[in-house]
Amino acid sequence: MISTFLQRLTSRGMATGIRHIRLLTPTVQAMSTSAASSYSFETIKVTSPLENVYLVELNRPDKLNSMNTTMWREVGVCFNKLAEDGDCRAVVLSGSGRLFTAGLDLSDFGDIVGVVMGDDDIARKARKLKAVIEEFQDSFSAIEKCPKPVIAAVHNACVGGGVDLICSTDIRYCSSDAWFQVKEVDIGLAADVGTLQRLPKIISNESLVRELAFSARKMFSSEAEKCGLVSRVFDNKESLLTGALEMASTIASKSPVAVQNTKTSLVYARDHTVQEGLDYMKILNMSMLQSEDLRIAAMTQMSKSKEKAVYAKL
Amino acid sequence: MISTFLQRLTSRGMATGIRHIRLLTPTVQAMSTSAASSYSFETIKVTSPLENVYLVELNRPDKLNSMNTTMWREVGVCFNKLAEDGDCRAVVLSGSGRLFTAGLDLSDFGDIVGVVMGDDDIARKARKLKAVIEEFQDSFSAIEKCPKPVIAAVHNACVGGGVDLICSTDIRYCSSDAWFQVKEVDIGLAADVGTLQRLPKIISNESLVRELAFSARKMFSSEAEKCGLVSRVFDNKESLLTGALEMASTIASKSPVAVQNTKTSLVYARDHTVQEGLDYMKILNMSMLQSEDLRIAAMTQMSKSKEKAVYAKL
Amino acid sequence: MISTFLQRLTSRGMATGIRHIRLLTPTVQAMSTSAASSYSFETIKVTSPLENVYLVELNRPDKLNSMNTTMWREVGVCFNKLAEDGDCRAVVLSGSGRLFTAGLDLSDFGDIVGVVMGDDDIARKARKLKAVIEEFQDSFSAIEKCPKPVIAAVHNACVGGGVDLICSTDIRYCSSDAWFQVKEVDIGLAADVGTLQRLPKIISNESLVRELAFSARKMFSSEAEKCGLVSRVFDNKESLLTGALEMASTIASKSPVAVQNTKTSLVYARDHTVQEGLDYMKILNMSMLQSEDLRIAAMTQMSKSKEKAVYAKL
Amino acid sequence: MISTFLQRLTSRGMATGIRHIRLLTPTVQAMSTSAASSYSFETIKVTSPLENVYLVELNRPDKLNSMNTTMWREVGVCFNKLAEDGDCRAVVLSGSGRLFTAGLDLSDFGDIVGVVMGDDDIARKARKLKAVIEEFQDSFSAIEKCPKPVIAAVHNACVGGGVDLICSTDIRYCSSDAWFQVKEVDIGLAADVGTLQRLPKIISNESLVRELAFSARKMFSSEAEKCGLVSRVFDNKESLLTGALEMASTIASKSPVAVQNTKTSLVYARDHTVQEGLDYMKILNMSMLQSEDLRIAAMTQMSKSKEKAVYAKL
Amino acid sequence: MISTFLQRLTSRGMATGIRHIRLLTPTVQAMSTSAASSYSFETIKVTSPLENVYLVELNRPDKLNSMNTTMWREVGVCFNKLAEDGDCRAVVLSGSGRLFTAGLDLSDFGDIVGVVMGDDDIARKARKLKAVIEEFQDSFSAIEKCPKPVIAAVHNACVGGGVDLICSTDIRYCSSDAWFQVKEVDIGLAADVGTLQRLPKIISNESLVRELAFSARKMFSSEAEKCGLVSRVFDNKESLLTGALEMASTIASKSPVAVQNTKTSLVYARDHTVQEGLDYMKILNMSMLQSEDLRIAAMTQMSKSKEKAVYAKL
Amino acid sequence: MISTFLQRLTSRGMATGIRHIRLLTPTVQAMSTSAASSYSFETIKVTSPLENVYLVELNRPDKLNSMNTTMWREVGVCFNKLAEDGDCRAVVLSGSGRLFTAGLDLSDFGDIVGVVMGDDDIARKARKLKAVIEEFQDSFSAIEKCPKPVIAAVHNACVGGGVDLICSTDIRYCSSDAWFQVKEVDIGLAADVGTLQRLPKIISNESLVRELAFSARKMFSSEAEKCGLVSRVFDNKESLLTGALEMASTIASKSPVAVQNTKTSLVYARDHTVQEGLDYMKILNMSMLQSEDLRIAAMTQMSKSKEKAVYAKL
Repeated sequence: MISTFLQRLTSRGMATGIRHIRLLTPTVQAMSTSAASSYSFETIKVTSPLENVYLVELNRPDKLNSMNTTMWREVGVCFNKLAEDGDCRAVVLSGSGRLFTAGLDLSDFGDIVGVVMGDDDIARKARKLKAVIEEFQDSFSAIEKCPKPVIAAVHNACVGGGVDLICSTDIRYCSSDAWFQVKEVDIGLAADVGTLQRLPKIISNESLVRELAFSARKMFSSEAEKCGLVSRVFDNKESLLTGALEMASTIASKSPVAVQNTKTSLVYARDHTVQEGLDYMKILNMSMLQSEDLRIAAMTQMSKSKEKAVYAKL
Repeated sequence: MISTFLQRLTSRGMATGIRHIRLLTPTVQAMSTSAASSYSFETIKVTSPLENVYLVELNRPDKLNSMNTTMWREVGVCFNKLAEDGDCRAVVLSGSGRLFTAGLDLSDFGDIVGVVMGDDDIARKARKLKAVIEEFQDSFSAIEKCPKPVIAAVHNACVGGGVDLICSTDIRYCSSDAWFQVKEVDIGLAADVGTLQRLPKIISNESLVRELAFSARKMFSSEAEKCGLVSRVFDNKESLLTGALEMASTIASKSPVAVQNTKTSLVYARDHTVQEGLDYMKILNMSMLQSEDLRIAAMTQMSKSKEKAVYAKL
Repeated sequence: MISTFLQRLTSRGMATGIRHIRLLTPTVQAMSTSAASSYSFETIKVTSPLENVYLVELNRPDKLNSMNTTMWREVGVCFNKLAEDGDCRAVVLSGSGRLFTAGLDLSDFGDIVGVVMGDDDIARKARKLKAVIEEFQDSFSAIEKCPKPVIAAVHNACVGGGVDLICSTDIRYCSSDAWFQVKEVDIGLAADVGTLQRLPKIISNESLVRELAFSARKMFSSEAEKCGLVSRVFDNKESLLTGALEMASTIASKSPVAVQNTKTSLVYARDHTVQEGLDYMKILNMSMLQSEDLRIAAMTQMSKSKEKAVYAKL
Repeated sequence: MISTFLQRLTSRGMATGIRHIRLLTPTVQAMSTSAASSYSFETIKVTSPLENVYLVELNRPDKLNSMNTTMWREVGVCFNKLAEDGDCRAVVLSGSGRLFTAGLDLSDFGDIVGVVMGDDDIARKARKLKAVIEEFQDSFSAIEKCPKPVIAAVHNACVGGGVDLICSTDIRYCSSDAWFQVKEVDIGLAADVGTLQRLPKIISNESLVRELAFSARKMFSSEAEKCGLVSRVFDNKESLLTGALEMASTIASKSPVAVQNTKTSLVYARDHTVQEGLDYMKILNMSMLQSEDLRIAAMTQMSKSKEKAVYAKL
Repeated sequence: MISTFLQRLTSRGMATGIRHIRLLTPTVQAMSTSAASSYSFETIKVTSPLENVYLVELNRPDKLNSMNTTMWREVGVCFNKLAEDGDCRAVVLSGSGRLFTAGLDLSDFGDIVGVVMGDDDIARKARKLKAVIEEFQDSFSAIEKCPKPVIAAVHNACVGGGVDLICSTDIRYCSSDAWFQVKEVDIGLAADVGTLQRLPKIISNESLVRELAFSARKMFSSEAEKCGLVSRVFDNKESLLTGALEMASTIASKSPVAVQNTKTSLVYARDHTVQEGLDYMKILNMSMLQSEDLRIAAMTQMSKSKEKAVYAKL
Repeated sequence: MISTFLQRLTSRGMATGIRHIRLLTPTVQAMSTSAASSYSFETIKVTSPLENVYLVELNRPDKLNSMNTTMWREVGVCFNKLAEDGDCRAVVLSGSGRLFTAGLDLSDFGDIVGVVMGDDDIARKARKLKAVIEEFQDSFSAIEKCPKPVIAAVHNACVGGGVDLICSTDIRYCSSDAWFQVKEVDIGLAADVGTLQRLPKIISNESLVRELAFSARKMFSSEAEKCGLVSRVFDNKESLLTGALEMASTIASKSPVAVQNTKTSLVYARDHTVQEGLDYMKILNMSMLQSEDLRIAAMTQMSKSKEKAVYAKL
């Protein structure tokens, strides 16, 4: 049924589109193997185990991947860089070692304590605290602003700041031993880097969200799956990582124009009315429908061979 | 307990309300049997199998109900007409033949291909594409704007544009052989006629929504029920249709003032804050509470006979 | 790992914070036992079965806790008072007698009937009806505006206005014999005191919400749990109340600054974009992070004894 | 040209509408002379110098009408009462004695100072201050929520809180000796009861608004007229009051349904998009167009006599 | 300074852009003279006095251009057509005969009167009135949605619906004998087709807006200019038309991509926050900056000859 | 009248507040003379001619201060730095040499031209252009986000990007020879770095805004003053700078807590409803009212000496 369409759509592609594909192919492959090596951080580790797929690991295993200020900052820097990296089309976020993350590394927040305990005027302390909170928020929001899909792969503990972190990702998988804890009330504060804002929009079982947030009780993998915090549970960390990377690879094989506009449109839609979401798509797709990716996608579907479509970097 | 209320409420009804009921009864019945016959379309079929209930079928079974531009346009025209049709109080939307819909009939989109492939300036192509997207969006949004509840009854495949379509309905049922696929990334684009905007507000398992939208993987009936995309799964197409029509008939037996204001209020509430939703109800109900339907509803509940309430058309 | 942090944080607390704790302790305990006695209502009953936990019971058991205008008004007055009551840190809301509530007591709405049936101009009737709706809405919204978490404990029937009521609470538990019914279409109107606005944001299975609202069908406890209207089902009323009070007590043991800011932040987040929610937290926490509750919470976690943290009233 | 319309519109009015008019006339007049006497306040004075027109005066002339906590509270109570008072259709707000108001009476804010200077935890002080600010805000917002138009008549000084106050009114007139001062920065705070929120939406010369708010400089009547803070300048207090009362009387002679819906629609429109404003009008006027006021207004315009239309109270 | 830029920008234009210009020139001119002839209405007259400039005249001079239902409908149809008409780049809207418009032609609103006076249930009347209001609103909103700039040229009277009408235009000019009247309160209703929603966003002298809307007093040309309702006053109707057409012609000589995106961006910005307005521009201009109009505009500015830029239709 | 208040407020200040003042005085003065020297840019010049007042000059006089990419970037960097600079309490922004700015230096936009002219896929070009626009927008938005008031002092030409620039400042002054031009349509594009978003919210004479934006006509100082784009016109550049610096100095003498919260509140209020603006103030001022600046401000007003208040840095 779609053949007429494809013939028309690809008639020009035969002349010009194919040329693009050929030209792009070697470049893409050459870069994708080595690109991840330019990411060098103290607390996180970045590799590219599959073509166009990056694996970002929280990497302080001896400290239970607890989040010190360096890690917080590096997460932001890393995802801002991934946003611009044409070799990266999908990201898996996991924790190295025994567990995903034990949450805030309170031993590293001396500066904030210094502000709070200092002799400054309340208004001036407030201004400084606001700057710190903003920096922390922006670091995690970088994951949401990065147009490449990010899959969190959680094993064992995901506590406090860890929940804020995964709420900024797109897809959440976990292993059966995983547990989650919105920990903030236990240190006397209302969570301010994403959990209270994003979690209710992720699972929308309001009763459960509030129970977790008010009581700081643990939630285990089966409940997390049932309420939709995670969309798949795997047997163990190994199968979890395999599953997450496979999904990432599937995503990475699609048109990056299609995938990345899908992500930014979903984020936009979450925060707007349906009509505003539709209006946004109109403005966005009036250029994006002119992309050569549509032609390439159509040619791929038409061809009976199992050859993979090759899209230019984005 | 409610007898005093009802006595007061109906004291006037005894004098005047009853008269309305008597006057309206024959008219309503006379029209409801034949009204659907005035709906004549090329790609969809409209019948009225039960009083005040309309059945709208996607009707290109030999083309797997794939959506060509005619169908797209006719869906909009049909639901705009149903919105104004006083005989229609509830609608079931299904597909004739082997499956619900195979999605876009790409062979019929030559005009769009013509625009994209043409020699026009990018800005001018963009303007034309915007007009096309808008027309497509408005056609499906007509379902949402139609104040009569619409129940989608999905059997077998519901692909691509089909998902956009059912996201505009109010209630979704399916048969056990049903499967759903957000297909757009596979043709190189981000869905722009409703799925990305409405699906996350329908099921709110954000992780799952994104997984489906990024990977174009199929979702089967059991998962669809678990995540809330459908609220009931039936054994097969027959029981599905029966179930959907029964629910439609139940709805059609209620006060149309109550039901239709409930639909428009739910749509409004989805896109506004709780307080704005409450404010809207205040303004709306300050006239609607003066409707005779309250009196009729109360009289019906009071009377011990099993007679059905008869409400005027809306 | 957190010891350095705690030492710094509490070094000042040793000098001054502890003093606060000692001073506050007796006061808090003295008041908490008797405070509830100052709540005196005709249709609801307020007690304090546990420290800092209040139990609010709909209390017209012989009338099936049906909601007359007095109860409606008293609910608002009660929760406005609880909002200001420093002894109250968590609330359980239940119904005395055989069931939670049978919904509106229609026999008591003579004033509204009088307005509707009167000879006034339509516009003037409309204005009066608007005032009544607003008063009813505000009464239930008082539960949402009260910064103390409210747990609804529903047994047996929860009908009509009862659903509006529990949609304003934070956490919903029920017994296995519980059932819920959005009843309004049966009396000819669209629900205007909260169900249509809040229910879709609580469970986000849009298909189910609409089915319930259009058909007025009953939903039983297992379906209510599955869709997330309630987050726990208990065997019977006794275990329900015990469970709800235990959760309330757990919440009441946490920092009230943390808990209450968590509630108001969640309510704010529901009605705003993620970024606006984050901005709100920045402004709020730039003062709240200066609270002594953080110091007390930290000291409590550090100390190995099982002594409970004691926070000042809020 | 409009005669056909009027004949149709009034054909029923001849039978029933006129009766309403006759019935209403004596009642309205009888009540309007004495109604204001039921308003009794310590710091403000309420009279009814013209039919359906109320004059509210700030009435602490020996204290330069400086605003103590009593005045603040009474303003709110007064306008909430005016909102419900069917005899009141327009309000003039002025100051008795030498000037409009000198602003906050700082000597009366001991309670707030007590909170700030107290030993309470910062978070707990914050909560108390929030309650105070809210109370103050709500008191002035009562003017905006009151559906009757309010005309501020300012002579001589209008300082600090006085500017917040008049920003809540609908129409602002002043005498030529008037001056205005956004005073808050001079006492170390950002204005929080209306000036910063409403002034920019009233005059929309952003450069001027910020200059006034940052520098606390005085603005005199001619500049106030030029920028649109006031829409008329009169020679002196006497002509100012006469002018304001005349305008109020003109407004009071119109249909209260028309006038009061105009006010609430303008307030709604200010805070919403144009489309949302239009949607609001649709829902509101679908009942309001059924008011008898349209019939009476039409009859009045048709009749050549100079008889005034008589509308029922609202 | 700009030469390097222009050389680069036009190097490709020399090869291809120029060709476009040559090709387009004859087409554009050929069509612009005759295009307006396809607009045929009963109550409005459409001509094209200048290249790419259309003049739309309210054309019931013997009825003082009073607005009957036909005119109302035709305004919508006309501007929807102009939106799609590539020959039209700017529009002047004026009234033929003695004055701009006397407002609603009440003699033609029998259908609405019929609804209001009928025996229908209040809720059903309300639904019909809502449909009428919506139709009227949409007709005037078509002017705002039309991406071509519309200049209202008002002489003499502009009453009631006339004010709603011109509030939907982009630029307002008038002759010195012009006067404006927000007339709705005099017929017992709150304006519901644009004045209350748009006027405050046009002039933002809130005090004046409310004075006009509550009192229905006339405003003359000088005051209209001072408050910004009109941005220019001309001596008489002739100079007014000349001035309006000259401005329209100037606008029509610019890039239609630039001009029309400017209009839609201004409308968007009015109803959104500054940041949302900026985000919209980002998405819009990421395609529009690829338009050939930038190249043509640059070449025109570079060339010293006075030759006019020729842009393709839009 | 205010003495009681002040005595209470300052009783503690006598013990502790004064100490702060003494301690802070030398520090503040010592730093304010030299602080500006740390600002070193290629295209802009930063000095501190008065205590706590910074003068930022566009500094490419030989290029008519035309805005190249370096200047664009440096404006953002500079104002981000000023935001954090405790010595800076008010800023004047002017142009060195003959005129304020000639707008975009098109010769420096080769990179953008390169993107547009390149062989990349349209979607990929679009992404790159989006990044450039965002960078440019953010640079000017830095002025708005900087909490210190910024006064633009415009002499002679202010063209294109110059208008975008001054729309981000708080207060606008100009000399009598100044003229302004929204130039973008002349180069074929819709302004995307602030003019279309901010200008209508600054002057709100919508008719004039659109005339300027569609026609690119010049507006001279008298019209700019009349419509409120500037709030003062000075004879020449010298008196302009003197006037701007005096106003800046006045502002710098006030409490920085008061002034900076006033700015951020005004920016917030512009983009939110009045009620949301009021809610923001409540949350903000519940900490800010605890600032020592209130005490210092009160003490200063009480003391009869002309000594200036000394506030700690912010």
